[in-house]
Amino acid sequence: MTQASIAVKIVLDRWNASLATTSKILQELNDDQLAQQIVPGKNRGIYLLGHLIAVHDDMLRLLGLGDKQYPELGEPFVKEADNPAAPFPAAATLRAIWETQVPFLKEKFATLTIDDWFTRHTAVSEADFQKEPHRNKLNIIITRTSHLEYHAGQLILLKK
Amino acid sequence: MTQASIAVKIVLDRWNASLATTSKILQELNDDQLAQQIVPGKNRGIYLLGHLIAVHDDMLRLLGLGDKQYPELGEPFVKEADNPAAPFPAAATLRAIWETQVPFLKEKFATLTIDDWFTRHTAVSEADFQKEPHRNKLNIIITRTSHLEYHAGQLILLKK
Repeated sequence: MTQASIAVKIVLDRWNASLATTSKILQELNDDQLAQQIVPGKNRGIYLLGHLIAVHDDMLRLLGLGDKQYPELGEPFVKEADNPAAPFPAAATLRAIWETQVPFLKEKFATLTIDDWFTRHTAVSEADFQKEPHRNKLNIIITRTSHLEYHAGQLILLKK
Repeated sequence: MTQASIAVKIVLDRWNASLATTSKILQELNDDQLAQQIVPGKNRGIYLLGHLIAVHDDMLRLLGLGDKQYPELGEPFVKEADNPAAPFPAAATLRAIWETQVPFLKEKFATLTIDDWFTRHTAVSEADFQKEPHRNKLNIIITRTSHLEYHAGQLILLKK
């Protein structure tokens, strides 16, 4: 294995492990717990679930792997802050999307070669990428793993 | 830049960014807030601060960069769960250690070459590493960044 292929493996392994951790937390929370705010005045669990789905959905676009699958979730779960008064999809709906999305993204990511991971993500221009070659697709996985862990650490607090 | 050197850069950049985020959160919390439990019955902020310091301290050993600087923090902040009855270092002491540790680790990490990052970490044997070359030093940074983000997502909840 080359160093580059090992680097891609450890980054993707950690992403998949973080998803597995989060899936386990979600399974351990019932819908009532998911409807609670993590702490008073902060995001509800269900908002975080929708937020993670919407952010991960946008990775398809950033990685040049196709269009968002759930574009309707961008507005309520990324652009807007949590608002208990806004109508949200049911927890069961979001849970089902999560379970579908995890293997779907894994399959999509598997179509990229090692070299592909070191090409630019779609939010950076070709000119900028020449100057900043670290703004590649692999970096998207790294930053999204951090984001996922940050919120996983919050979701687990809903467990009693 | 080679793909390997770009990979090392994006992993270390993310680690440093996660440390910076956490430093900012710590600066925004006063000692009273840090003494609170994140949610009732869960870890206190000060426990998480000590925990992060102790886990990061152990990275020196894992990366073959020397001995722990604060071995006395392993028992109360890693082996033991949070216990409000146990005597803890003062918040000011832990804050000072954090501020010292962040640049200290950065300086230590800077002594490793790109190739060094792809050598085994010290918790894996040479024989196992031959079979599992992904258990390298770079992987330690990746897993510890995830761990840090997980707890940073909790610490920020203490902000009112």
